[in-house]
Amino acid sequence: MTVAGVDRAAGPAERIAGLHLLDTDVHHDLPSYDELRPFLAAEWHPWIAGGGPGFARRHYSNVKAHIFMDDVLREADGLGAGDPDWVVEQLIRKYRIDVGVLTGTGLGVALGHNPRFCAALASAYNDWTLEKWVRPHACFKGSIVVTPQDPSAAAREIHRLGDDPGIVQVLVPSGAMLPYGQRHYWPIYAAAVEHDLPIAVHVGGEGTSIAGPPTAVGYPSSYLEFHTDNSQSMMAHCASLVTDGAFEEFPSLRFGFVEGGVCWAPYVMWRLDRCYPALKAEVPYLKHLPSEYILDHCYFSTQPIEEPADHRHLLQMFEMLRAERTVVFASDYPHWDFDNPLTAFSFFPAELRRRIFVDNVLAFYGPRLLGPST
Amino acid sequence: MTVAGVDRAAGPAERIAGLHLLDTDVHHDLPSYDELRPFLAAEWHPWIAGGGPGFARRHYSNVKAHIFMDDVLREADGLGAGDPDWVVEQLIRKYRIDVGVLTGTGLGVALGHNPRFCAALASAYNDWTLEKWVRPHACFKGSIVVTPQDPSAAAREIHRLGDDPGIVQVLVPSGAMLPYGQRHYWPIYAAAVEHDLPIAVHVGGEGTSIAGPPTAVGYPSSYLEFHTDNSQSMMAHCASLVTDGAFEEFPSLRFGFVEGGVCWAPYVMWRLDRCYPALKAEVPYLKHLPSEYILDHCYFSTQPIEEPADHRHLLQMFEMLRAERTVVFASDYPHWDFDNPLTAFSFFPAELRRRIFVDNVLAFYGPRLLGPST
Repeated sequence: MTVAGVDRAAGPAERIAGLHLLDTDVHHDLPSYDELRPFLAAEWHPWIAGGGPGFARRHYSNVKAHIFMDDVLREADGLGAGDPDWVVEQLIRKYRIDVGVLTGTGLGVALGHNPRFCAALASAYNDWTLEKWVRPHACFKGSIVVTPQDPSAAAREIHRLGDDPGIVQVLVPSGAMLPYGQRHYWPIYAAAVEHDLPIAVHVGGEGTSIAGPPTAVGYPSSYLEFHTDNSQSMMAHCASLVTDGAFEEFPSLRFGFVEGGVCWAPYVMWRLDRCYPALKAEVPYLKHLPSEYILDHCYFSTQPIEEPADHRHLLQMFEMLRAERTVVFASDYPHWDFDNPLTAFSFFPAELRRRIFVDNVLAFYGPRLLGPST
Repeated sequence: MTVAGVDRAAGPAERIAGLHLLDTDVHHDLPSYDELRPFLAAEWHPWIAGGGPGFARRHYSNVKAHIFMDDVLREADGLGAGDPDWVVEQLIRKYRIDVGVLTGTGLGVALGHNPRFCAALASAYNDWTLEKWVRPHACFKGSIVVTPQDPSAAAREIHRLGDDPGIVQVLVPSGAMLPYGQRHYWPIYAAAVEHDLPIAVHVGGEGTSIAGPPTAVGYPSSYLEFHTDNSQSMMAHCASLVTDGAFEEFPSLRFGFVEGGVCWAPYVMWRLDRCYPALKAEVPYLKHLPSEYILDHCYFSTQPIEEPADHRHLLQMFEMLRAERTVVFASDYPHWDFDNPLTAFSFFPAELRRRIFVDNVLAFYGPRLLGPST
């Protein structure tokens, strides 16, 4: 199929000029683990017989009541986000999105206790995404979900799919055992840069399965509190990537922070920069100011975009973090706190909006985002 | 003794007009646990025979090399910050500080494994501070260090000293077992508000003793990383205090966040406010927007003040968090990242500087800050 804005016959420059919106965070739904069966190694079939694993659950009361946008819940057959045609209609066409990057609901594999099972499930999930969503629909691109708890398996999965034209990133959750800058993870980054794929950290998983509590001081009481606190793991990963030297080791590594908020980034940059001159003897392998690594390697997705009462404050914050090169659009469809691109950014200068909606997204993913998926 | 700017004979209005600078974070040093012996219950004397407890240690290499300002280390007899006269000379007079609130080095009692011993030690430490520092020197005021791991003991200590004219706050570390909004701690707040004392959370202790790891994703690798990450526990406490309803339960409760950075606060306020309308059914006991609780009850100390390359950005950030009512000055004497008040804030408008240096500090502590200590 052809989707508004993506005309495969057009040359790159013309095509780019014709783009309206690129969405870095579209959650396609897995209606049932049974759909993965054709893609899953046979030895694991008995293990999903009971309906699949229940990992990555949070226990904040009544969270289902607000997890989805009202119009995604279909009376007839459950969740519309499990149907590619529905998502094309309800998201892609409605909001004039050219390409939506699929982030799914499979991040739990990154935090499951059994890394072998999780690696098998990740492969099945990735193949299912490609076959059911990406190959038939030019408007979708896929992510490789992996098992950071077993970096060697994650690297193998990246090498297996890393050159697939339907794949544009490696996807991991913010919940983790260790900060993402640590050497434990470097085989994943070596594989990713070999295939010119960025890493996206999508918020989620804190306090579940093999991840520690969601904050340094334990468990939040409410989902409102949790939802605010869960940016902290993003900050920890960001500081770790810089200070552990991951960007020195992998100069072409790009890291996206998805759904973790944006306006904490100036604080983290300034705090690191403030301390770095006095402490650089401790990190002699760093060659630049910490903020330079962040500005050169990191991207921050918009949703859920902060909404200060005074619009000027958000624009000032965006200037502080050089949004014209670091911020990318995300809708988070079909979740309750979906950002409507037609209204959420209406007060932004057109040029900045264009950078966030199109140019920065292309810089993050590279040209593969606009190529064919078959 | 009389110190510049504090003339006990002057009336309040005149005295306030004559103030130059109030410092919320002066670390007086305990030269040896032996100094606590006269104040410590006899049954615990054998337990400090080995030199006192070793709690709250971090293991980032070579941290001693940068923990103190160069001119605090005295060749003759160790650390100058253990000598009140030295601190009067080197800090209070040199920088024209009217009153310095003593924050000491005793926060470890709040994270020790043995709460009975820690409660006894806290009492001894508080009495030692009053006798050695506060009573003889009108320029110093004291904090009550307590044991939040045992709120009933903490409340007893607050009731014991809470009306002492030399005491201006209750002091706890940011490292903790649980976020500070939780009901576990409410006996502490009930006692504090009864004596009209604010609570100050001073950064520190994450990852030590009974506290969890310093981030939601485990342990940082370097002190640079740790020092950036440790604001996250501050954010978690702030979000918890709001969402757990502590400020609804204690309408006069004032909370200070000391040495945890300032520029994360707009993000936390905006994130909470963004989600609150959709999630308020979960927290029906809240009556206001989350940011209103923060602006009405919370104070943020300046040091280590963020130093973006563009001064305008810091001023914008201060506008976002209503610094004219929420930010208070701290020097963090005698630590390596001490903020020199004569230079660090030179580009601030005079009116804002006055609020941060004097007016907000008085609002936080109340009139007791300027009264006699005996």
